[in-house]
Amino acid sequence: MTSTLTRTVRVGILGFGTVGSGAYRMLQDNRDAILRRVGVPFEVTKIGIRDTAKPRQLPAEMFTTDLTSIVDDPAIEVVLELIGGVDPAAELVERALRNGKHVVTANKELIAKHGARLISLAKSKGLDLHYEAAVGGGIPLVQPLKHQLAGNDVLKMMGILNGTTNYILTKMQREGADFADVLAEAQAKGYAEADPTNDVDGFDTMYKISVLASIAFHKHLPVEGVYREGIRGVSLLDMQYADALGYTIKFLAIVDAIAEDTILARVHPTLIPKTHPLASVNDVYNALYLHGDFVGDLMFSGRGAGSDPTASAVVGDLLDVGRNIAGGGSGSAIPFDEEPLKTCPIDDLRTAFYLRLVVQDRPKVLGIIATEFGEHDVSLAAMEMKTLDESRGEIVFLTHPCLEKNFRELLVGLKQSGVVEEVCSSIRVVS
Amino acid sequence: MTSTLTRTVRVGILGFGTVGSGAYRMLQDNRDAILRRVGVPFEVTKIGIRDTAKPRQLPAEMFTTDLTSIVDDPAIEVVLELIGGVDPAAELVERALRNGKHVVTANKELIAKHGARLISLAKSKGLDLHYEAAVGGGIPLVQPLKHQLAGNDVLKMMGILNGTTNYILTKMQREGADFADVLAEAQAKGYAEADPTNDVDGFDTMYKISVLASIAFHKHLPVEGVYREGIRGVSLLDMQYADALGYTIKFLAIVDAIAEDTILARVHPTLIPKTHPLASVNDVYNALYLHGDFVGDLMFSGRGAGSDPTASAVVGDLLDVGRNIAGGGSGSAIPFDEEPLKTCPIDDLRTAFYLRLVVQDRPKVLGIIATEFGEHDVSLAAMEMKTLDESRGEIVFLTHPCLEKNFRELLVGLKQSGVVEEVCSSIRVVS
Ligand SMILES: NC(=O)c1ccc[n+]([C@@H]2O[C@H](COP(=O)([O-])OP(=O)(O)OC[C@H]3O[C@@H](n4cnc5c(N)ncnc54)[C@H](OP(=O)(O)O)[C@@H]3O)[C@@H](O)[C@H]2O)c1
Ligand SMILES: NC(=O)c1ccc[n+]([C@@H]2O[C@H](COP(=O)([O-])OP(=O)(O)OC[C@H]3O[C@@H](n4cnc5c(N)ncnc54)[C@H](OP(=O)(O)O)[C@@H]3O)[C@@H](O)[C@H]2O)c1
Repeated sequence: MTSTLTRTVRVGILGFGTVGSGAYRMLQDNRDAILRRVGVPFEVTKIGIRDTAKPRQLPAEMFTTDLTSIVDDPAIEVVLELIGGVDPAAELVERALRNGKHVVTANKELIAKHGARLISLAKSKGLDLHYEAAVGGGIPLVQPLKHQLAGNDVLKMMGILNGTTNYILTKMQREGADFADVLAEAQAKGYAEADPTNDVDGFDTMYKISVLASIAFHKHLPVEGVYREGIRGVSLLDMQYADALGYTIKFLAIVDAIAEDTILARVHPTLIPKTHPLASVNDVYNALYLHGDFVGDLMFSGRGAGSDPTASAVVGDLLDVGRNIAGGGSGSAIPFDEEPLKTCPIDDLRTAFYLRLVVQDRPKVLGIIATEFGEHDVSLAAMEMKTLDESRGEIVFLTHPCLEKNFRELLVGLKQSGVVEEVCSSIRVVS
Repeated sequence: MTSTLTRTVRVGILGFGTVGSGAYRMLQDNRDAILRRVGVPFEVTKIGIRDTAKPRQLPAEMFTTDLTSIVDDPAIEVVLELIGGVDPAAELVERALRNGKHVVTANKELIAKHGARLISLAKSKGLDLHYEAAVGGGIPLVQPLKHQLAGNDVLKMMGILNGTTNYILTKMQREGADFADVLAEAQAKGYAEADPTNDVDGFDTMYKISVLASIAFHKHLPVEGVYREGIRGVSLLDMQYADALGYTIKFLAIVDAIAEDTILARVHPTLIPKTHPLASVNDVYNALYLHGDFVGDLMFSGRGAGSDPTASAVVGDLLDVGRNIAGGGSGSAIPFDEEPLKTCPIDDLRTAFYLRLVVQDRPKVLGIIATEFGEHDVSLAAMEMKTLDESRGEIVFLTHPCLEKNFRELLVGLKQSGVVEEVCSSIRVVS
């Protein structure tokens, strides 16, 4: 089955933006080293783009706007899908597979929404469908979960999976700046998109945790099964209170195994103790913390986005495809079941909370509030109080772990108590 | 080439100590989940041990002291080599491969010394030879270096690769205890071997960095090419000085790429800034920091030893072998060249140093010492001085990066200067 015949692996690239051009550059820059390591040369024969007017560093004949012609090209053996989004990516990837081509993609949305089907298709045709770059950029996460950790029952995953939001939160924390100002600056510098929804409202993180959980639990986690809250509501004031309490606010994706084939998956800003390894993952860095029944605690961190790190992952996948082709092996796609994972609603979560209220500053107020907490079975771990003006005070609470449902009802109770002027913020706490 | 036929993969285990029994237990405990994930059941049919008198949890007929009979057994398709050492492990692994069996091993010494040859043999026969557990216990390091990171030129690696020594240093630091006391306690608790040489003198770490560098640079790094210094000389006093200067002392393996195919590899106690991510890797945890030209900075950390985490890596490798057998694929061994990597001698290293001296406490002494530094081209970054008694003082220096050779000549010069009573310690610094 092994073959020492050296022949060129022909590659077509769909998309030549941040990632596509990075992958191309890596294949050029490290050409000789890659040939020595893998034993086969790679040649990019065609690149699909949308806008022919954009200046490119390569001869015009390398490019086409007819992406279908690339996935139909009989000379191309591997397609790198680096355009993003579902439409037309899903159709192109499916067509490439049906045409017998291996596929490498960096597209988390595609895998989160259509991965189960597409990976099964790849497997059924003996092809590779790799997507290491879809989560964590250059950090090896996807393949280690599929391979080296596959014997474990994964009990917990917590990740900082979006570079833009981690950059924003880090900058707010370091510079004492407000969310809106930091976002505007990040947009001006090109670190954040003009429409930041995908990042700051947590869609990107949701796609990524869907991908990771689908691998770890071997069944598809539909994005609808992920509870999602973005970071727009994180205020500088809450960051400062958190800091004083010994916590940092990070935008986390968290998955807990609840029972056999049942998980609770959520994406939201979170207070984590400063001593937690995730607390010192700053700027555009990403990280995944994982607990498996045998492996115990693991942490991976590194550059979760950007042209070069993402190219590293795409090219790593491509080299595996090349080795496989050269070795005459069959594809190594590892599908997860299309049958969805069971998910618990967020109401069932047991978690500690950080809560900030503005209250009336008059006798008995604290007693009334304390009674509400007691009635909803929420007990307090810490409290800090401050006078705002002659009639109002600000109170910050840290609760012990409680049922999310109870905490929500507590908030309703507090609002109706007549003594709470405003429920300013409530943020879940990892203790 | 793909096959959906479900048949049992028959496994023979050599060695049933910490790792062997852990791997067996993991295959039992997670049997159903593994079957669901990988699609093939694994059955351990025979286990090789040395001492039949030891109590075991399994029926006696599972065991044999005739290890050759296992690697010769035609019914066994995969051999897990978990006895350790070179003799008889090397011979058994070679024989297993020649008999057409896939091999999984946790044996760093074996791979460091005979890996190049054995992996080539595996590849030539279309077999797998996996060794994820050999470095970093449960942390996925070996396979990610071979696969997801393979497109990168690795520029630097720094690792905490030995749990026992990291435990000792952490405990010294936390409890203000001396090396000898902590070692004795670790031995009593079974965390350190009765003969601790392999760990505290850095042999274990040397084997591991040899394995990692051989993969990263795709040529064999012979253990003789690794400069090695153990931790016996690390004193509590130096730890305290280091702490005051903002550093932690860790036992690191460091590889720097110097030029095309030339590296400098070393294992020694090191001062690293407390802000460095490796500084907070404590107790028996291991970690690898890596810098690649495209991927940038990466960190992996987790449990580097122990029955369960090591079993996680062994079983992860075994599942890959099983997938491969079930898929009808060829082996995926990735050899590194037997032609050795070129290594620079430690004399060529440029590094900062921490230096502690006892000197005569009389006029002009500092001038004489300063002149020695100047004459050897070693410049100072920080200095702290303390009177010990009426005639002697203690000085601690941090140098700027200098040539190791110059620093060693400086030490000779200081000893001959007539004013230095003792060169108490010198430790390299990562800045
Ligand atoms: N950027 C990162 O750091 C990063 C990290 C990890 C994963 N990813 C993923 O990688 C993928 C690509 O991201 P990116 O940042 O490289 O995007 P990008 O910079 O916007 O580039 C997208 C490329 O695809 C082309 N394209 C888009 N839609 C097309 C269409 N309908 N027909 C033809 N060409 C089309 C664009 O053509 P024009 O050049 O003509 O506009 C462009 O070359 C996405 O799935 C993303 O989620 C990105
Ligand atoms: N322990 C860890 O945390 C760890 C972590 C990573 C890698 N590793 C590696 O894993 C391997 C095994 O380590 P371990 O800690 O499991 O060792 P261990 O506890 O000492 O067990 C060794 C096993 O091998 C058997 N054995 C040794 N020499 C033999 C011989 N000549 N003939 C027959 N049987 C023999 C022993 O038999 P008896 O039971 O009869 O004595 C025992 O069952 C080593 O290569 C080690 O470096 C260990």
